[in-house]
Amino acid sequence: MSDNIKICPGFRFAGVHCGLKADLALDLALLLSDCPATAAAVFTENRFPAAPVVYGRRQLAAGEKIQAVLINSGNANACTGHQGIVDVATVAEVTAAALELPRAQVFISSTGVIGEPLPVTTILNGVELLTAELDEKRPEGESLARAARAIMTTDKTPKISGITVETGQGAITLTGIAKGAGMIHPNMATMLAYILTDAAVEAGIFKAMLKRVADKSFNRISVDGDMSTNDTVLALANGVSGCRLSDNADLEILENALLEMARDLAYMIVKDGEGATKVVEIAVSGAATPAAAEKICRAIANSALVKTAFFGQDANWGRIIAAVGYAGVELKPELVNISFDQVRVVSNGLRDPQYREAAGAAVLRKPEFSVKIDLQSGEDEFTILTSDLSHEYVSINADYRS
Amino acid sequence: MSDNIKICPGFRFAGVHCGLKADLALDLALLLSDCPATAAAVFTENRFPAAPVVYGRRQLAAGEKIQAVLINSGNANACTGHQGIVDVATVAEVTAAALELPRAQVFISSTGVIGEPLPVTTILNGVELLTAELDEKRPEGESLARAARAIMTTDKTPKISGITVETGQGAITLTGIAKGAGMIHPNMATMLAYILTDAAVEAGIFKAMLKRVADKSFNRISVDGDMSTNDTVLALANGVSGCRLSDNADLEILENALLEMARDLAYMIVKDGEGATKVVEIAVSGAATPAAAEKICRAIANSALVKTAFFGQDANWGRIIAAVGYAGVELKPELVNISFDQVRVVSNGLRDPQYREAAGAAVLRKPEFSVKIDLQSGEDEFTILTSDLSHEYVSINADYRS
Repeated sequence: MSDNIKICPGFRFAGVHCGLKADLALDLALLLSDCPATAAAVFTENRFPAAPVVYGRRQLAAGEKIQAVLINSGNANACTGHQGIVDVATVAEVTAAALELPRAQVFISSTGVIGEPLPVTTILNGVELLTAELDEKRPEGESLARAARAIMTTDKTPKISGITVETGQGAITLTGIAKGAGMIHPNMATMLAYILTDAAVEAGIFKAMLKRVADKSFNRISVDGDMSTNDTVLALANGVSGCRLSDNADLEILENALLEMARDLAYMIVKDGEGATKVVEIAVSGAATPAAAEKICRAIANSALVKTAFFGQDANWGRIIAAVGYAGVELKPELVNISFDQVRVVSNGLRDPQYREAAGAAVLRKPEFSVKIDLQSGEDEFTILTSDLSHEYVSINADYRS
Repeated sequence: MSDNIKICPGFRFAGVHCGLKADLALDLALLLSDCPATAAAVFTENRFPAAPVVYGRRQLAAGEKIQAVLINSGNANACTGHQGIVDVATVAEVTAAALELPRAQVFISSTGVIGEPLPVTTILNGVELLTAELDEKRPEGESLARAARAIMTTDKTPKISGITVETGQGAITLTGIAKGAGMIHPNMATMLAYILTDAAVEAGIFKAMLKRVADKSFNRISVDGDMSTNDTVLALANGVSGCRLSDNADLEILENALLEMARDLAYMIVKDGEGATKVVEIAVSGAATPAAAEKICRAIANSALVKTAFFGQDANWGRIIAAVGYAGVELKPELVNISFDQVRVVSNGLRDPQYREAAGAAVLRKPEFSVKIDLQSGEDEFTILTSDLSHEYVSINADYRS
């Protein structure tokens, strides 16, 4: 945890152990704004949305401002039926009472095991610990780090990002925390991200902006249709900077800052993917349509055979070309070019005559590299970040109950 | 290799080492009919079909009968451009000359590394060895087993099946060999299968029959769109039994026998899947449409998280329900039932009140079991066979160049 992370004014943080995780690990986080904040969220599209997702979606659809966010790890409150919804309401009610807020302004997230009843009493005890923690007045950076730790499941490191940018109305700050996800298809490990800013922005504009940002960041590290029951990205704008952003130039600055932060958190999630030893960018260009570029990108990024080759540091372009071929996109094999970073491997559908295995292998040994596919059939492109598939991935997921 | 395998009359077999694989492993197989046989085939739908697939597809489209099949392992002759096609023709030409057949009646398959030129000279030397081997007159079962071994790549065991059935015209025999595939999504390891019979049947009928049979067998262990560059199922009917099958009852007997053999070989492929320790049947019922049943089936069967849980013998129904939820099918979560074999785990979208973890865990410890999902929303169903995702899978695919 760097001391240089920009912490957004007007927000306080706390993280405690309440008893959901073993070994006294932090398992309950609070993000608290000094005042009600404009809220925008993107939720999972899974047909079995977890209880906090059902509850939060209704809350945001009702146009509620949000002042407090309570997040527990260790239990997903998913597949828990009507009782799950009642439990979210109870937790929100008690948190609201403890913080002297309206219940409607308390947002709840959960991540962890599916299908177990939420241990409500344990969490309610945790809320008392959180309010006590707020009074302790730890250094801000430490409190933020504790909150980021408390939302982790199989993550190895907390994910925190902060930036300050100048707008026409003055400086604004954004601070974000996230928890990661298994990086493999299908991605069912929950992804949670919270981005907080002291800017003021109109709710409708903020919602549309967050959707666009999520599509270009969090949705380019995993497959939309493959979301977990609990995936949530929440953004809060509390306006304490006094900068009310409404003209196009200022809104563009905010959107770019949100995108930078979202990509930063998304990158951290891939880098800390379950068992990941590599971060690989898959970049498809020259496609006839955006959908074609995306399909090929995802076919490669989701291929277990490609990902095990990355782990094995094997410049196995045959597996990549096979994935291109089964992505369900009409293409001309004789036009396809493939490079690993700057090393051309395939030219016009055949092994490049200049290609030497040693050059490809050198790229694959790097911790981060790009696989570039040019279809030479149009102008459209798509990029996705993925990780490799390692022994540790199997160990984590054969043993961990998520 | 059981001595009880039924060997189809009118076919001879040979397998030799010609130098494509290390350690003197068998790497070239010949299947030879006593007379030209009616042929039907199903090929990969990959957009980068390998040279022998391009060649074989043209050959069968031209209505050619087939008398000899030459199959090499160790090199896929895929992504080899025009030269690859020329190489197939050369190999077919030399094989035809050695066997004194028309070139058009020699069918060629390849499996192995993608993107390397086919070592034609090595294979041509192998053809001489094969003809010598035919003259050696080994026991038929041994010759068949050698052919089945020669087509293996990461397979641990040869896959051979044989049955005899009674038709209205007399008894017919079917003998099949196959090589397996990585059992994980996306399935790019090549699947090859050859089914030989001494029945006589009209070519058009035989082709339609094989397509239906493949859809209910080989295409229910891996995803159609995810085929490798080389996948091929070839069936030959040489008619030496004298049983010409043309009435509906006889054709139904043949189709059922083909299906039984195809399912038997498909089961062996899953059981010997790369690193597999479990064979799991995923059975979806009560779907509103056949497509909905299939989508959910494949979402579960292709989930790395579900498959690692199978490997970990973890009755992790949360991952299964999450996969049901992201399959892209409209459904009513509150109607979904899930069972592991006879153990009801989820009733109406919630953990069954009677379910005990120990009962689920006992099923998961079995080497073979079923996961049953009833959507209670219609009459349609789909079933697929899959395997688990183990450490050995990662080892095989991080190290093996396929």
